[in-house]
Amino acid sequence: MHFTSEQRLDDDVIEREFTLGEIPGILWTPAAASAAAPARLVLLGHPPLGLGRMYPRLAARARYCAAQGLATATIELPGSGDRPRLAAVDQARADLRRAMEAGEPVGDEIIDALILPLVDAAVPEWQTALDALLALPEIEGPVGYSGGVISIGVRLALVEPRIAAAVLFAGSFVPRAMVEEARRVTIPLHVLLQWDDEGNDRQASLDLFDAFGSKEKSLHANMGGHTGVPQSEGEAASRFLTRHLS
Amino acid sequence: MHFTSEQRLDDDVIEREFTLGEIPGILWTPAAASAAAPARLVLLGHPPLGLGRMYPRLAARARYCAAQGLATATIELPGSGDRPRLAAVDQARADLRRAMEAGEPVGDEIIDALILPLVDAAVPEWQTALDALLALPEIEGPVGYSGGVISIGVRLALVEPRIAAAVLFAGSFVPRAMVEEARRVTIPLHVLLQWDDEGNDRQASLDLFDAFGSKEKSLHANMGGHTGVPQSEGEAASRFLTRHLS
Repeated sequence: MHFTSEQRLDDDVIEREFTLGEIPGILWTPAAASAAAPARLVLLGHPPLGLGRMYPRLAARARYCAAQGLATATIELPGSGDRPRLAAVDQARADLRRAMEAGEPVGDEIIDALILPLVDAAVPEWQTALDALLALPEIEGPVGYSGGVISIGVRLALVEPRIAAAVLFAGSFVPRAMVEEARRVTIPLHVLLQWDDEGNDRQASLDLFDAFGSKEKSLHANMGGHTGVPQSEGEAASRFLTRHLS
Repeated sequence: MHFTSEQRLDDDVIEREFTLGEIPGILWTPAAASAAAPARLVLLGHPPLGLGRMYPRLAARARYCAAQGLATATIELPGSGDRPRLAAVDQARADLRRAMEAGEPVGDEIIDALILPLVDAAVPEWQTALDALLALPEIEGPVGYSGGVISIGVRLALVEPRIAAAVLFAGSFVPRAMVEEARRVTIPLHVLLQWDDEGNDRQASLDLFDAFGSKEKSLHANMGGHTGVPQSEGEAASRFLTRHLS
């Protein structure tokens, strides 16, 4: 892990860009975090649109977490930004677009091809990032995960024991195989669903929520479209993480 | 409206029992509320089990609201406590018990007979209570409604313009006719659903949530059975009311 830049946001958040091998990432820490008083970490998930395009929303979430004493970090997804494309995923995305433009139902094969290779490639990278981040003296576990491609969150919640709680955004296609993985997830979950998100399969989201094996799970559904999560819900999600990481 | 008793709860909540004609009720006000600084009011709904049995939970909700500066009030439901029984509702309740014990599906006629007469009888009483309560100098509108039989909340949200926001608990049978009324509701709504409530029809609750005409509506679903709403959700509901009444 190599830090490539450092700047202060406002007065109390330090933003550092880094590379982890070929993977770019960003770490935000409360300025008050130190080896003597390390901050708990939240991994910020995001859709595969590239860190550059996602930066404003990620930085806003990072600032919000920092105000509650939490560090946050994110890495570029495989196939996004300046990273090498994932040919199979690109193909699936083209198939998806064709199906949607033709008004056809989106078949399970397309969803599997779109999501599963991304999950398989991304999850080990987030785990490697976690190794590197938790080696920093100003950061400690347990760790939270928040947002982004929900199947990546589900897989991480299942396979990564350092993740103690997750905020999941039910706003992307979910392969059927992930529902089976969801049954084996047991950590506390806070699931956000935009009820009137036209690009989302609401019933699939409800089925996924139902499937989670976690004894503590909440679903917060709101109006306002895909990107319209109300501010009060951002705050509730952040309180959920603070409660479970402190 | 005649006050029949007054006591202090803790140091900062005044609890007054009252009668409104034949209907008993309870009013809780923050001790700081006065004609110069009147408190906003939340009507506390409850299931038809009698105010006596519901008192501990109602007083806890009242204390919580008072800590946020809100007054709360409740009245006995028709057919509950010491009030005259509603014969048709008692008959429907017996039919319901028989159907459930026999493992039969609960038909729409039973649900209609159980809920609709209660809604028709209760809602004008809550409106009369509102007239009396808002005439007190230490209380002012706009008013919130929270909890209890969801169909009473839906009808009140629809017909009572002084109610500006409602917290609804999707935990009771819902007549089909209420779904049609729900479509015409437009005030901000915060709906609580206990996902694993065995006595509740989850799909009917989701359909009702979907039907609400309100532009601002949130569904918060949690585990923990009918009476197991997590404390964090009680707080979120209370924040919702505070946000919309202040």
